[in-house]
Amino acid sequence: MEPESTETVYAGSLIRVVVERWDGRAREIVEPPNAVAVVAVDEEGYVALVQQLREAVRKEVLELPAGGIEPGETPLQCARRELLEETGLRGGTWRHWGGFFTTPGFCRERMELFFAEGVQPGERLEIAGEALTYVRVPVAELTDVLPRIEDGKTLAGLLLYLREAAS
Amino acid sequence: MEPESTETVYAGSLIRVVVERWDGRAREIVEPPNAVAVVAVDEEGYVALVQQLREAVRKEVLELPAGGIEPGETPLQCARRELLEETGLRGGTWRHWGGFFTTPGFCRERMELFFAEGVQPGERLEIAGEALTYVRVPVAELTDVLPRIEDGKTLAGLLLYLREAAS
Repeated sequence: MEPESTETVYAGSLIRVVVERWDGRAREIVEPPNAVAVVAVDEEGYVALVQQLREAVRKEVLELPAGGIEPGETPLQCARRELLEETGLRGGTWRHWGGFFTTPGFCRERMELFFAEGVQPGERLEIAGEALTYVRVPVAELTDVLPRIEDGKTLAGLLLYLREAAS
Repeated sequence: MEPESTETVYAGSLIRVVVERWDGRAREIVEPPNAVAVVAVDEEGYVALVQQLREAVRKEVLELPAGGIEPGETPLQCARRELLEETGLRGGTWRHWGGFFTTPGFCRERMELFFAEGVQPGERLEIAGEALTYVRVPVAELTDVLPRIEDGKTLAGLLLYLREAAS
């Protein structure tokens, strides 16, 4: 399954845009790095969320810890690194739920989702250019927090975790 | 909440890419049209899904009926149009669940989610360039179908609908 032709029309620092021809029709496709998201529950039964300014949508968004996979990283390594950088949490028992496409209509991004339980607090690494707030929510109160969630991967991840926890 | 500067670095037929400067740092941001997705349940208790080739991810993906909002359309008008075009379903009782960002890290897209119940079958409109298969799934079997879903909005939409239906 390959296009008839591919032309790079924008090559930036984070993303690339290509125009592919399929069956005579042009498709504009965005290529960001692939990504991970983590539902992490600490030893006291709190889920880790992070709130940060998302310039693209002009507001602060409450989300699962997440980020782009760097060259040479496995998805699990990336997930552990992002959780550590954003919250200081480490250790615990990890499971890979699976993955999903965030916007398959025009973008290649695939997001791998992990569940981590029994994670423990530690020192947070400061990352230049990432100003975010670590927010702890008791698992039992997640249902009340859902109406405040405006991020697709966070809705999917929390709802999938709640279903598994209930079964 | 505005950037210090904005430069359009790619203007295509569907998407635009801008580089904004915020607090001295450059952010690459993708601007597709905003979009809608619909969880539609027909009078026989079947949820409507559509399967189509998503060139961006090189595979057939099973998704909620969805699409981009056209100029002059309200989100509800768009949702009714997309459902009609993709499945032939019409009528029914509609509710707006709310909206979420699909990838707020680098993209402005906001997706409005609708629940439509009691929709009725009718003739499907043929849309040039959209080859898709309409798939009906009984609400009671949605849980079994979830592991086959690889699309973020579809996971979020179906799980939100199942929670509301169960409460």
